[in-house]
Amino acid sequence: MPPSVAIVLGSKSDAAIMEECGRTLDRLGIAHETHVISAHRSPEKLRQFALEAPQRGVQVIIAAAGMAAALPGVLASYAPTIPVIGVPLAAGGMSGLDSLLSIAQMPPGVPVACMAVNGARNAALFAAQIIALRDDGVRRALEDYRRELDQG
Amino acid sequence: MPPSVAIVLGSKSDAAIMEECGRTLDRLGIAHETHVISAHRSPEKLRQFALEAPQRGVQVIIAAAGMAAALPGVLASYAPTIPVIGVPLAAGGMSGLDSLLSIAQMPPGVPVACMAVNGARNAALFAAQIIALRDDGVRRALEDYRRELDQG
Amino acid sequence: MPPSVAIVLGSKSDAAIMEECGRTLDRLGIAHETHVISAHRSPEKLRQFALEAPQRGVQVIIAAAGMAAALPGVLASYAPTIPVIGVPLAAGGMSGLDSLLSIAQMPPGVPVACMAVNGARNAALFAAQIIALRDDGVRRALEDYRRELDQG
Amino acid sequence: MPPSVAIVLGSKSDAAIMEECGRTLDRLGIAHETHVISAHRSPEKLRQFALEAPQRGVQVIIAAAGMAAALPGVLASYAPTIPVIGVPLAAGGMSGLDSLLSIAQMPPGVPVACMAVNGARNAALFAAQIIALRDDGVRRALEDYRRELDQG
Amino acid sequence: MPPSVAIVLGSKSDAAIMEECGRTLDRLGIAHETHVISAHRSPEKLRQFALEAPQRGVQVIIAAAGMAAALPGVLASYAPTIPVIGVPLAAGGMSGLDSLLSIAQMPPGVPVACMAVNGARNAALFAAQIIALRDDGVRRALEDYRRELDQG
Amino acid sequence: MPPSVAIVLGSKSDAAIMEECGRTLDRLGIAHETHVISAHRSPEKLRQFALEAPQRGVQVIIAAAGMAAALPGVLASYAPTIPVIGVPLAAGGMSGLDSLLSIAQMPPGVPVACMAVNGARNAALFAAQIIALRDDGVRRALEDYRRELDQG
Amino acid sequence: MPPSVAIVLGSKSDAAIMEECGRTLDRLGIAHETHVISAHRSPEKLRQFALEAPQRGVQVIIAAAGMAAALPGVLASYAPTIPVIGVPLAAGGMSGLDSLLSIAQMPPGVPVACMAVNGARNAALFAAQIIALRDDGVRRALEDYRRELDQG
Amino acid sequence: MPPSVAIVLGSKSDAAIMEECGRTLDRLGIAHETHVISAHRSPEKLRQFALEAPQRGVQVIIAAAGMAAALPGVLASYAPTIPVIGVPLAAGGMSGLDSLLSIAQMPPGVPVACMAVNGARNAALFAAQIIALRDDGVRRALEDYRRELDQG
Repeated sequence: MPPSVAIVLGSKSDAAIMEECGRTLDRLGIAHETHVISAHRSPEKLRQFALEAPQRGVQVIIAAAGMAAALPGVLASYAPTIPVIGVPLAAGGMSGLDSLLSIAQMPPGVPVACMAVNGARNAALFAAQIIALRDDGVRRALEDYRRELDQG
Repeated sequence: MPPSVAIVLGSKSDAAIMEECGRTLDRLGIAHETHVISAHRSPEKLRQFALEAPQRGVQVIIAAAGMAAALPGVLASYAPTIPVIGVPLAAGGMSGLDSLLSIAQMPPGVPVACMAVNGARNAALFAAQIIALRDDGVRRALEDYRRELDQG
Repeated sequence: MPPSVAIVLGSKSDAAIMEECGRTLDRLGIAHETHVISAHRSPEKLRQFALEAPQRGVQVIIAAAGMAAALPGVLASYAPTIPVIGVPLAAGGMSGLDSLLSIAQMPPGVPVACMAVNGARNAALFAAQIIALRDDGVRRALEDYRRELDQG
Repeated sequence: MPPSVAIVLGSKSDAAIMEECGRTLDRLGIAHETHVISAHRSPEKLRQFALEAPQRGVQVIIAAAGMAAALPGVLASYAPTIPVIGVPLAAGGMSGLDSLLSIAQMPPGVPVACMAVNGARNAALFAAQIIALRDDGVRRALEDYRRELDQG
Repeated sequence: MPPSVAIVLGSKSDAAIMEECGRTLDRLGIAHETHVISAHRSPEKLRQFALEAPQRGVQVIIAAAGMAAALPGVLASYAPTIPVIGVPLAAGGMSGLDSLLSIAQMPPGVPVACMAVNGARNAALFAAQIIALRDDGVRRALEDYRRELDQG
Repeated sequence: MPPSVAIVLGSKSDAAIMEECGRTLDRLGIAHETHVISAHRSPEKLRQFALEAPQRGVQVIIAAAGMAAALPGVLASYAPTIPVIGVPLAAGGMSGLDSLLSIAQMPPGVPVACMAVNGARNAALFAAQIIALRDDGVRRALEDYRRELDQG
Repeated sequence: MPPSVAIVLGSKSDAAIMEECGRTLDRLGIAHETHVISAHRSPEKLRQFALEAPQRGVQVIIAAAGMAAALPGVLASYAPTIPVIGVPLAAGGMSGLDSLLSIAQMPPGVPVACMAVNGARNAALFAAQIIALRDDGVRRALEDYRRELDQG
Repeated sequence: MPPSVAIVLGSKSDAAIMEECGRTLDRLGIAHETHVISAHRSPEKLRQFALEAPQRGVQVIIAAAGMAAALPGVLASYAPTIPVIGVPLAAGGMSGLDSLLSIAQMPPGVPVACMAVNGARNAALFAAQIIALRDDGVRRALEDYRRELDQG
């Protein structure tokens, strides 16, 4: 099965907080892959990844980064038809206010869907909602998930 | 054509700033409808709207509100399979910091995709990216749109 | 004795910080009950609770939640005649600035009384002040409480 | 009819923004009176007012102030059994963040119910909810008010 | 020797952070006394203290408090001729932003000299600068202190 | 009469907002002089001014500046025995939060007394309180001033 | 003369505020050119520009952008040996706090020199300081400039 | 080899966080020296240092300070032709927001290049970029550094 969701981390150190994202996608039966590519340290790699994403079958990108979190926006700039979900991380000592504003305040023309600071799980759920529009299995998995939440 | 996107405004006074959202959807060929329903003043109406949205064929909800902007989150709580895009509005004199945090900081389990403060246009574009996953016409419209942006 | 005050927590993990609320109500001789109902994960349960609160004799609701703390506002939207006291919790790593704004910045028409971040004790005292308007025992208990504070 | 609600303004210049408070109380049939007393410039007058409030029949105090808004807290400190509703005003060029924190962040023991910045109308409605607990006319007026809001 | 400086703490728990204030006054040869009086919990005691301060020979008041730190402002309101130095404390989980704004943003007419968050030492030094205007011993002690700092 | 108070402005454009400072000093019978010296553009002039201030009989310095408002702190660094009152100005589009923090957050050892943003009048009053400690005329003027405020 | 400084604007609407940057460079005798390239709307153009900058003789890049201001960081990511000066613009209604954090909070490895919000003139002066290290004419022009400032 | 870069720390306690700055300069083959001089406690020493820096061959100054971080600005005010890089430190409990604004918000005429909070490494890299304009060895070292980053 080709990966539906690509998770991109700005740094290896973001992997722990984003683990819950992969786990949630697993539980909803959504194939995914994880890459570590820094927007600022590896711009060519990031561009290559974004340009190839459509033909590789990536349907949704989840991008997590801290501080001046350019990662989701750069991905969005290179992949105009793929929804990019941004997860601001509280990495730089400012409680994530810096990354939250860097991700939420995208200029008109290039949207990014901003989640809560460290919102790994919700990024997976939102990706699932997008995929559910054409995948009944995922839609039912989402309905089950929410039902359990409600009873939890 | 059934509406693909439902735009929900927390107040009539939000209509001016959100006009650009409808215009952008029009341009991308996406059917839409607009409702004014306050989360706090008309909770039953809002619930009814959210519960009926799936069978009415709503694929994406865009919800715009200012201050303690509960609107997108309440819609998301009632419609677990529909992606909800939240637009924080700078309505209460705090430059939108209040609505931005009220929309972005959703708790784990119920995601909302937060746009920039007053980000009406990006809400439309993000909705289009979601719909483009199963609608080639919208995907091509998005590609055209971005190409023009780039040349603009 | 029917419960005068209903304490609603957005999550089980909020119970520890809110214990002081119950203890303070006990000390002032005010009957109370505690419920854990998430605004976003269990919207129907929350609505049911709010709609039934008046006939169950609930006189004041205390609602505590973190992050995008919609809980007090949603309760207020369904129970127009019951005073709702909101306690913003510092749950999401942002020192409670997110929940404080989400609770304080309610739009015109649907008030919520916002306490300090993690202000469990003051929520109980404010509920007691409301109840004291028609309950002399509580009024005297409040006067005693404040007298001890002053000497403490 | 003795005044049920006393509105206290920290400065004459706050009268315009707080007019809506009086109008809303009028509409709900609640007697009220307005005083201009600065916490910092007229501390003795404020203390006198607070100490006499109970025997004058004041049931709820609404206190509005900007900047380092000590007014509601000082009233609360002198009137332990009367609920004090604080309205932070955006008077000092900081969008009301200063007065919001000065009112919301009350220390344990002396609560103040903080409304939104410039939240004149909600202060009236919250006062009405408190009074409605023992006044059926006000309770019905509140129900009517909310019904109209919902249809508005 | 009558106390030149009165240190007032809003709570016993503020004593540790403010110890450095007393130590610095000692080192500069300035007599001082410390009181714990909460502005909100003991308003009468605080008023009494402020009203008697002039005849007791208090020349400068240092007032330290956290959260909605009304303490310095209330003292200033009752003692129009005594300089009041306010020390905002990081007591309420908001890094002291709340107490900083509550102390710095005093309305026109009633000044308070705001120090840094937890700025116990500078409060002592500023008090010493005031007293040095009429006390050559303190002036020389300040000059020595600064010289050592410079070499420190 | 030698000037008791020196007012230093970081820029000519700050004169309008600070006029009230001079007017208030006039009214209290305090001699004063005004200088425009930028901390960053004219460091030698500022140093010269600070070093000569004591022998010129300056008893209190009031320094007003916007943005990264180093002016009060630099004056304090060169004049260890003169109290420096800092007035943060809302000059740079950030509502004065930048200058407020630049002035209030002085490091241990070198105090500055921070007033409210644009707090020109309170700077004059605080200077008067300092001078009143050894000038009975000013003390009485202050008492009169506050009495009028209270009646105003 | 090849351009020493390239000014890059994220949007045409930023030209007015950045005019002072060009004027200041002119005055200091530094050749410059201006480009309008959005990081998010024209990523390929921006990359091309950054990759070619070294061989075109660009010695310093000044990049101005508002909101989630990725522009300076993306330029820095593609041009590792060219100093990039970032100017955050107050474009999005948040007083520039969003762009300031997006530019200042760059992750380790890829620096950007952040100026004040709307700091067009200082960007030119900082570029001149860099160029002055190997251009005596510019160094003397800077010394003259500062001398005039001091006298201004 | 004369030092190309002078690192100035506002306090000895800043040495640990700034060690990475020296290490990075070492790795890039740039001579450097470190001084501890507080802007506020040792103004004469700081001035002397800044005035002598040009003839001592200092090409770039890196200045790190916390709280009301005047250090970089004061250095810039005395050394009009030397680029000053400022590193805001999270020293005062406010996550560095205070020092960030104190350094970034420099007034027109006297620039400072602001790095991220605690951005020791980037300060070194930015200094290297400046020096690389006339030192091919440093330029190649920077290219190597970035290449490794990209592969790291």
